[in-house]
Formats: sequence, C-alpha cells, structure tokens
Amino acid sequence: MIKLQHNVDAKKISTRIEQLAGCSSTSFGVTRLPFTAESSEAERLVEEWMKAAGMTVRKDGLNNIIGRYEGKDPSAPVLMIGSHLDSVIEAGKYDGILGVISGIEVVQTLRDNGLILDNPIEVVGFCDEEGVRFHSTFLGSKAIAGTFAAEDLERADEKGITIAEALKGIGIVDPYAYKSASRTPEELLAYLELHIEQGPVLEKENEPVGVVSGIASATRFSFEIIGKPGHAGTVPVTIRQDALLGASDLISYIEKIALQNEPLVATVGKLTVGPGASNVIPGLVTGTLDIRDLNVERKQKAIDAILTEGNKIAKSRGLQMKFDLVMEADPVYCNEDMIKLIEESISERSGSVVRLVSGAGHDAMAMADVTNVAMIFVRCKDGLSHHPDEFVTEEDMGAGAEVLYSTVIKLATKQ
Amino acid sequence: MIKLQHNVDAKKISTRIEQLAGCSSTSFGVTRLPFTAESSEAERLVEEWMKAAGMTVRKDGLNNIIGRYEGKDPSAPVLMIGSHLDSVIEAGKYDGILGVISGIEVVQTLRDNGLILDNPIEVVGFCDEEGVRFHSTFLGSKAIAGTFAAEDLERADEKGITIAEALKGIGIVDPYAYKSASRTPEELLAYLELHIEQGPVLEKENEPVGVVSGIASATRFSFEIIGKPGHAGTVPVTIRQDALLGASDLISYIEKIALQNEPLVATVGKLTVGPGASNVIPGLVTGTLDIRDLNVERKQKAIDAILTEGNKIAKSRGLQMKFDLVMEADPVYCNEDMIKLIEESISERSGSVVRLVSGAGHDAMAMADVTNVAMIFVRCKDGLSHHPDEFVTEEDMGAGAEVLYSTVIKLATKQ
Repeated sequence: MIKLQHNVDAKKISTRIEQLAGCSSTSFGVTRLPFTAESSEAERLVEEWMKAAGMTVRKDGLNNIIGRYEGKDPSAPVLMIGSHLDSVIEAGKYDGILGVISGIEVVQTLRDNGLILDNPIEVVGFCDEEGVRFHSTFLGSKAIAGTFAAEDLERADEKGITIAEALKGIGIVDPYAYKSASRTPEELLAYLELHIEQGPVLEKENEPVGVVSGIASATRFSFEIIGKPGHAGTVPVTIRQDALLGASDLISYIEKIALQNEPLVATVGKLTVGPGASNVIPGLVTGTLDIRDLNVERKQKAIDAILTEGNKIAKSRGLQMKFDLVMEADPVYCNEDMIKLIEESISERSGSVVRLVSGAGHDAMAMADVTNVAMIFVRCKDGLSHHPDEFVTEEDMGAGAEVLYSTVIKLATKQ
Repeated sequence: MIKLQHNVDAKKISTRIEQLAGCSSTSFGVTRLPFTAESSEAERLVEEWMKAAGMTVRKDGLNNIIGRYEGKDPSAPVLMIGSHLDSVIEAGKYDGILGVISGIEVVQTLRDNGLILDNPIEVVGFCDEEGVRFHSTFLGSKAIAGTFAAEDLERADEKGITIAEALKGIGIVDPYAYKSASRTPEELLAYLELHIEQGPVLEKENEPVGVVSGIASATRFSFEIIGKPGHAGTVPVTIRQDALLGASDLISYIEKIALQNEPLVATVGKLTVGPGASNVIPGLVTGTLDIRDLNVERKQKAIDAILTEGNKIAKSRGLQMKFDLVMEADPVYCNEDMIKLIEESISERSGSVVRLVSGAGHDAMAMADVTNVAMIFVRCKDGLSHHPDEFVTEEDMGAGAEVLYSTVIKLATKQ
C-alpha cells in the first residue's frame, strides 16, 4: 500500500453524509427526487466540496454534476468515479451518496498528498438512478453512456410534469441538451463505483469492504395455479385439488433449486390465495417468481428445472399451472483487471477478500455500455437499505474510501 | 323392503324444488333469507303441500313451519323429519329444501298407501339454519331444542333490523314466543334429516345415498409467521428468514398429517403475504387453519403435531410462528340404532352402504341437544353446494326419499 502523509478522513465523509441527509423533502428518512429544490441544495453542497478538493465543476446537459481533477495528461482517458445523488421515498442516507462523497474525499486526499495521477479523475453525482419520480431508472448514467432515449423526455411524474419540463424548471431550457452529456468509449478509461452493499453478505463475512464480480441478470415471472375450490369440511383430503398445496410444493422446490445453485437467488415475493375464506379450499393462487444470477446459463437451467417441476406438481395434484415471463434483464460483468486491482487494495488493508454478486441494479449497469466498470461494496447494518434505518459505521466508510483511493491510484497510473 | 302400491314420486319432488327456487330475492341463484317476503312465499307453498299430504300445519313461535301426520297413538313421542327453508346468498336449490320436500313426499306416500304409523310424524321446515342474515346459525332448530338464547333476539341484520323486529314484521308480535317452540326430550322420538352431501364422497363412491356417522368437530386457528423482509436480489438464500418458506413447510406438513389421519380434514384457506412485492423477501405471512374430525382425540393429536412441527419450522428458519385458537365446535354423533335402520333401508335398495362424516354443520347438530339424531345424505354433482350450479338428479332425489320413507316406517313402528 502506498504510504502517504494524509489518509482519507472518515469523519469528514460521515459529517457530509449527515449534511446531505438534510436535503430532503421529508423529515422521516431522506426523500430527494431529481430536479427538485432539495436536489439543487444537495448539488450546491457537492459543488462546494468538489471545488474545495481542487476540482473544476460543471453540470452536464441532464444535470449530472461532474468535478474534474486534472491528470498529468489532460487528453488521457478519464477515470470516472461516483454514484447517484437521488433517493427513493423516505430512504436512508448512504445509498448513492456514499459513492459521491467518498469520490470527493479520494480526490481531496490525492491533493493533500500532492499527487497528480496520469489520468484525469472525474467524480460524478448522477442526477437520477432510482427512477422513482419518472419510473425509469439510470437516467443520469444513461445520458453519459449515450443510451438515454429521447422519448424519455416526455415521461411525466405523478403531477404530470415531464422530464423536459422539470429540466426547464432548473434552468436547462433545451431538452436535447442531454445529448451533450454523452461520452465516447475513447474518452473514458473506466467507471468505478463505491456503493453500500444493500445486502447482508459483508456483515456475515465480517468484512467492511468487498469487490463486486458483476450485477446479476434478473428474470421475473408471474404464475397462476388453478385448482378446485370446495368446502373445507366436506371434501376428503385425498381428492382435493388445492391450489395452495401446489403453491407450497412449488415454493419449497424453488428454495431447493436456489440452494443448489448458490449464489443464485430466487424469491416468491407476492402470493394471493382465492377465494380466501377459512372454510373454503383454495381454488386459485397467483404469485411472482424473481430469480437472479450473474451466471445466465445456470439461471436458465434453474428456471427450466422450476418450470418442469411446476408441470409435475400440477399433473400430480390435478391443477393447472401457468408461468408468464414478465421481465428479463441482462447481467453486467465487472472488468476482471479492475476487480484484481480492487482485491489488491482490499488485501493491503485487511488481507481477506470477499467477492460478491450484486443482486440490485446500479449506475455501473448503464455505464457498462460505454466503458469498463467495477464496483466496491461497503458493509451496511443488517443489509438494510431503502429505509431510514440504513446505516454504515464511520469506520467502514473510511475503509471503503481507502480501498477506493488505493484503487484509483492504481488505475490512473500507467504501468 | 316393504312393498306397497305407491312409491315416492321423484318427479313431484323435483318440480317442487324448482317451484321453491322461484322464492328468491335474486334471479342469479336462490337467495331466501329468513322472515322476508320470499321466505313467506316459500312457507305458503310448503303449507299448501303439507296440507295436501294430509298434515295439520302450524307455525311455532320462531316461525318454523311444522306439518303433523298423526300416529296411531297421538300421545306417543314424535318422529321429527325435515330440514331448513332458508339459503345463503345466491345459493343452489337443494340445500335444506330437499329435506323438507322429501319429508312431505314421505308423508304423502304413507297416506297414499293408507299407512298410519305408531308414532306421529312431524315434518319441519326450519326458519333459519345458514345464519346469513343475523350471523348466528341454527336459529330455528335451536328454538325447538330449547337452546335459543334470548339475547339473540337483539341480533341485527345489515340494515339494523333485529330478529325481534323481523318477527314483528311477519306478525309474531311477542318476541318471547320462541319459548313456546321448544320441545322436551319426552315429546320427541328422534330427529331424522335428509340433506344433500355438499361434498364429493358419494359421487366418488358412485352411490346416490349415504348414511352420516356424525358431524365433525371443527377447530379453527389463525396463524402468523414473522420473518425478515429483505431485497430479493441481495440477500443470499442461505441466510434468509423468509416467512413464506416457513408457511410452505407448514402447509405441506398439515396435508401430510391430514392424509395420515383420514377422514380428518385440514385446510389452510386464507393466506396473506407481506410486504407483498415481487422483489422483496416475504417478512410476514398470516393464515387460517381449519381442522375437522368426528374423532376428537385424533383431531387433538393432529393439532398437537401441527403446532409442534410449526415450532420446529420456526426454529430452523429463524422465524416466529404464533397460532391463535379462533373457534372450537364439539362433534355430534348420530344415533347408532338409527344409523343401522338407515343402512338397512339403503341395503334394501342397492346393497352398498357408504357411511360418511359430515364436515359441514346441519340442524341435526342443534337438535342433538334434545333428542337422538341421524342423517341421510344425497349425492350432489361435483360435491358443489352454496352455488347456483348445485345439482341433484331426479333419480337421486327419488333414491333419497325412498330411503327416508323406509327409515321413517321402521323408526315409527313399535318393535
């Protein structure tokens, strides 16, 4: 590890996280939707801190905020680091924000140590990742990756305000300005994102920081199981066509398949039972199956097994079982060279490396369309996120920023 | 079998069933709540048919309609046969009514054959068995059994009309008149009820008529399973506390226990899953367990096994599982001597006797408090009841009435 006079200041990161949490439209939790007064207030603070860290700051055509710390060669491809500034409704303080503030702190530390790297570093605060206001995720990172769709400008929030109108409201009069935000693969060295894990793996492994191997491919089905309703007192158990018993068999089998194919995850999150009376045998069950894996082949095999077993269950119980594909998202693989550099940086700190799959989506997914990506995960309490109780210790924030700092130096230094 | 000139007239029973189905407040299915214009219309028809069969007709203090066919000894205890005249909302045509109309046809046939039995026969049409209007079942049979509770007079329907007020509306001005409806054990020889099965056993056994061994004891629980909600993409399957997986284990086990303890029946009829989003691991499941058996000891053992297994599941999955007892109804055993006479009557017809437990409640339950009871079940299509598609063939109605006729003669003839 590069030993230097100044290290990242975890206390400063923590203080800034608290300050930004105040930029919220709700007092319970953080609610900071894009293109609002509270997001402008957050951007003002971020801009101030970027400038204090020695960056030149600009906003692009979709209101992403970008601070640039010049490299030895200003024409060299840019190493972009960061995350998003927006939140869900009544969210926690760390989701997204931690990546932006840690990025600023990394640049601040470079500067404090008098380090200029070969490549320019840009710290980005994406305007919208969660997609809560306009029901479309990754707006900011898509604009930079060049995949933002013109028709999305007409997406409206619940008050009927479109993205184009919201942009006008914050001073971006030309709605097509988003086009100028896009970057080419040649302009970029890579995108590196630090984010809270939003899951319990690092906590369980007792490690503050981990490296992400990729963002899982997700497939979602809805299913329907049709049986025969009947009187709970008069129909013998042997001749029932109980839809809920079929569902129970299916749900147990889904777990079995998931356990056999770890780290694949599979979840039946919704289930309704009809007619739904205590003295009536269930005649209809509807539900959802969400299945995710970085390994698409393994996931497909698991899906095939589940559908086959579903048929078997239906046949043996005299039920009908139908699955409808609702959603299919491709996986994103993190860049192996970058993963190795992150692992080195983690090893230098603590010696033990946890590599994990992200089951949740991140800006890195969108950025993967234009450049190599990698992600650093920081442990959060109980794996809880999208909730006011979301929590990261100051120590873990420091650990994450240290790994980010070390990785940035490695990446932006010519071999 | 007693061979006589005149046999029961199945066609007449069928025609009368159709006529009574017209006494309904809805055109889809039969809806005939007690103390209404449509129930008065039904009573008018029943009274007319009872009189035509040679009975003297009266209404008691709770508006049960009773036709009496005198015996050789008018002071001998009465053999009461019948069922209820009311229905659920949008019901079928046969539930209840078939027992009343078959009873009238039995008396008609006795009279056509010039038979006077030792005991008087009373055919009863109970005013309310379903309990839909006032949310209390067996009102009519309870009045006759002497178990009708005075405070029930103040029970109100959804318009706020109490039983006392409803009785006033049909001309029963003294609400306490119900007291005069009660009969003593000495006054009654027995109560014998013919009813549709409301289940699929006879259809499966390919028999039109069966004898009931008793009405099952029913126990109802509500249960709650508390786990830990989490992101469907980020929490590994190995460390989840998925409440729905616990519920699936429980539901499968309940079926296993039921299958091991036939003819016990157990049903999870209601199930809700929270938070109920496709990408969130279920943190809360609530449901109901309905378990019935004529054998109370066996039922209790099954319940104990289910609660023990529930604890085991909860422990192994890191869940909390709570069961609350909601309802407990005692079993009613049919009289063995009466069962034997019914079996003889069935054997004389077809040779094959099916003895089955009633999982549903009937007026015989209430009547068991004052006299010996027995029941004859008649096959219904697909075991379907409480539905406009409820159906009994004319042939099966005839078979049922023949068995009732033969049993009535045996019962009301001194040995």
